[in-house]
Amino acid sequence: MIMEIKKILEFQPGTKTKARGWVRFNRVSKNIGFITLFDGSSIDGIQLVYKAENESVFEKLSSVTQHSSIIVSGTVVEARQGGVEIEVNEIESINLNQDEKFPIGKKEHGLEFLRDVAHLRPKTKLFQSIMKVRSVAGQAIHEYFANEGWINVHAPIITGNDAEGAGEAFYITTSDGKTFWDKQASLTVSGQLHAEGYAQAMGKVYTFGPTFRAENSNTTRHANEFWMMEPEAAFYDYQEMMTVGEENIKFASRKVLELCRPELELLSKYFEKDLFARIENIISKPFERISYTKAIELLQQAVKDGAKFEVSNIEFGIDLGSEHEKYLSEQIFKGPVYVHDYPSKIKSFYMYQNGDGTCRGFDLLVPGIGELIGGSERETRYDVLLKTIEEKGLNKDEMRLDWYIDLRRQGYSQSSGYGLGFERFVMLLTGVENIRDVLPFPRTPGKINY
Amino acid sequence: MIMEIKKILEFQPGTKTKARGWVRFNRVSKNIGFITLFDGSSIDGIQLVYKAENESVFEKLSSVTQHSSIIVSGTVVEARQGGVEIEVNEIESINLNQDEKFPIGKKEHGLEFLRDVAHLRPKTKLFQSIMKVRSVAGQAIHEYFANEGWINVHAPIITGNDAEGAGEAFYITTSDGKTFWDKQASLTVSGQLHAEGYAQAMGKVYTFGPTFRAENSNTTRHANEFWMMEPEAAFYDYQEMMTVGEENIKFASRKVLELCRPELELLSKYFEKDLFARIENIISKPFERISYTKAIELLQQAVKDGAKFEVSNIEFGIDLGSEHEKYLSEQIFKGPVYVHDYPSKIKSFYMYQNGDGTCRGFDLLVPGIGELIGGSERETRYDVLLKTIEEKGLNKDEMRLDWYIDLRRQGYSQSSGYGLGFERFVMLLTGVENIRDVLPFPRTPGKINY
Repeated sequence: MIMEIKKILEFQPGTKTKARGWVRFNRVSKNIGFITLFDGSSIDGIQLVYKAENESVFEKLSSVTQHSSIIVSGTVVEARQGGVEIEVNEIESINLNQDEKFPIGKKEHGLEFLRDVAHLRPKTKLFQSIMKVRSVAGQAIHEYFANEGWINVHAPIITGNDAEGAGEAFYITTSDGKTFWDKQASLTVSGQLHAEGYAQAMGKVYTFGPTFRAENSNTTRHANEFWMMEPEAAFYDYQEMMTVGEENIKFASRKVLELCRPELELLSKYFEKDLFARIENIISKPFERISYTKAIELLQQAVKDGAKFEVSNIEFGIDLGSEHEKYLSEQIFKGPVYVHDYPSKIKSFYMYQNGDGTCRGFDLLVPGIGELIGGSERETRYDVLLKTIEEKGLNKDEMRLDWYIDLRRQGYSQSSGYGLGFERFVMLLTGVENIRDVLPFPRTPGKINY
Repeated sequence: MIMEIKKILEFQPGTKTKARGWVRFNRVSKNIGFITLFDGSSIDGIQLVYKAENESVFEKLSSVTQHSSIIVSGTVVEARQGGVEIEVNEIESINLNQDEKFPIGKKEHGLEFLRDVAHLRPKTKLFQSIMKVRSVAGQAIHEYFANEGWINVHAPIITGNDAEGAGEAFYITTSDGKTFWDKQASLTVSGQLHAEGYAQAMGKVYTFGPTFRAENSNTTRHANEFWMMEPEAAFYDYQEMMTVGEENIKFASRKVLELCRPELELLSKYFEKDLFARIENIISKPFERISYTKAIELLQQAVKDGAKFEVSNIEFGIDLGSEHEKYLSEQIFKGPVYVHDYPSKIKSFYMYQNGDGTCRGFDLLVPGIGELIGGSERETRYDVLLKTIEEKGLNKDEMRLDWYIDLRRQGYSQSSGYGLGFERFVMLLTGVENIRDVLPFPRTPGKINY
């Protein structure tokens, strides 16, 4: 019979129970010993008490090393510090941690040190908290879309397309060094184009899967492999799609607040003391919406009023930097803000052209993170799409996107969608500042251990 | 205001509404025309009626081509054949399908033909049905594990490990033809080993993501890219893990039956007339459990009783073929059956060795599919694991799995898990017989269009 610590913590004193888990701490004095046991079900675990009067139990448990796994029987008793603990009567099994060089010890480790033992760091309370938030957020995203009748489409990972004509992709070979049966194949950088195809048939769809960039970049925001969630809906304009983004983010944030309270408490001590306020702010405030033109005006005014930016020459046409994005959401709106109708020149070829040099692209900027979502209403007009591709200096043939462009001649409806960088969302919800610490096994240049 | 056809179908006659979607059929006579409109929200769509007395509407709609997208306003009226239809008053927009060579027409197409237009086949009722079942089943798997407190771990796709020492992996290069920053990197064949690491810290975890095989194999059961769902739980023995598999499959099957009834009706006409009975049988019957030894005895008895197999020399030690697996589940048990405690020689190195030549591996065999799940209790003992690796002729160093093997010296608990081939599950639930028809964009040797 499997009994999780989370459930034992609710037992009445006097209850007999088994408990199993790993030893987080083991403190022993002459007559009594205490083990903090964890099994992943509760962040703080449960305390085991063992007494010298039970000789064989005392002898065995007192020499149990940290991170050993054990199964014991005992009685639930009231703990002096409140709640319950278990007085151990019997030991069912012990599997000792025999690794004398075991890297995770009693004292707190630095995040960089822990990255080098990615398979062991979930044994720390810190990473259990991060990974639980990650899991709950991801499950909540699926729940939201399932409730609303959206279809989850698994976009292909191996692809013959070259989504943005941008190059930085990984390529595939078989073990004999050849390509994918003589065809050039790469790892996807986005599921959007495939999602658009499905949206033109099934209406409301979303992808949620790994995407890849071959960039040789070692910042706190980049990894070579990361997860993206990309909804796409036919007959939605970009304003309606911004609403989907707002609702989805609020739904998932609410779930995390509801299901991960102890984890958030720990994370707020470690990373971001105002973490609860940050999440409450996301949930409770309507997301503001302003045009890019208005955003530029606000930033120009801010400069006049004394705000300092590294790039302070702010005028229509510039690509907003992280410093500007954060200023808008943190200083001006003090909450999430959508910026929309960007200059066409700084956005992708597939966005709907307004005809005045702007397009129906939108970004969601949030405090502490900057850009969380990037989306757009898609270009519906075949001739305009071709013209934009040409104007951007892209090569239609090299992109191998005929099937995608042709959709516009085949009864294409209005369509809008966005991409949510899932790791950024987890960083928002945990306060973690390095993408390497929200990915279970981060892949960055040259890092593929484990 | 977005109005889905699914909702319009519930409106009272007399209601004014907008409707938008694609034209599945357009039949026009002298005075009246009928359009079947679909938008993905309802498999049958809704009928639009337009009359000659409304001249401009009649003129425009009568020339609308199949698969054009339109938005119209009108009044909900009772339909002669029951239910409701819309009498069109006004046209808001039309985006014509202008592709004279558009491959999807009025008559039914063969599955093989449709595979070559993977991005357009979801416009057929058949593929809308398959992809809806796929989506609902996947969402239900997440819902089940979320309800039960399991942690979803995203196992890495790019990996430096060589999971089974087996070779058939895809390798990664950057655009300059080099490896992953001088390290050999391949696409994952399974998330199990990484899930085991996380289970040793967080208890109950599962992965659900794409996996890859570079096999040059063109059967109806193999694709180069497919999705696997792999739960792993510390302190679970293999019998308990079989229970998880049974509950999870029943939960997801029940959801599909509940949410996809019209889709299953269509699929049962096309593929498998007893589809409802097949799914009911999965949901209602307890899954049987027999040892491999018992399975061999039953098959030997069947041969004596006149059953014909291509491989009829049935004795302890043989790997059960698809014909044997189907015979056990279809003829003998008439439902799902777990076979467990297989000979060690035909199973993987990481399974728990019983010491009598068998190991704690298990497979779930189901009617119509054969093997649906493969799992095991994992070897906990460091020395036994090393010995098994050696006996199997595997090279510990080439596998680059030191971190995984070392877990056994670091307080490893009992652990069990399994892999569910997600496409096989969708094939079970839809009656589809070729894996290419349950994947949105199937990747098989040389096939990476779209």
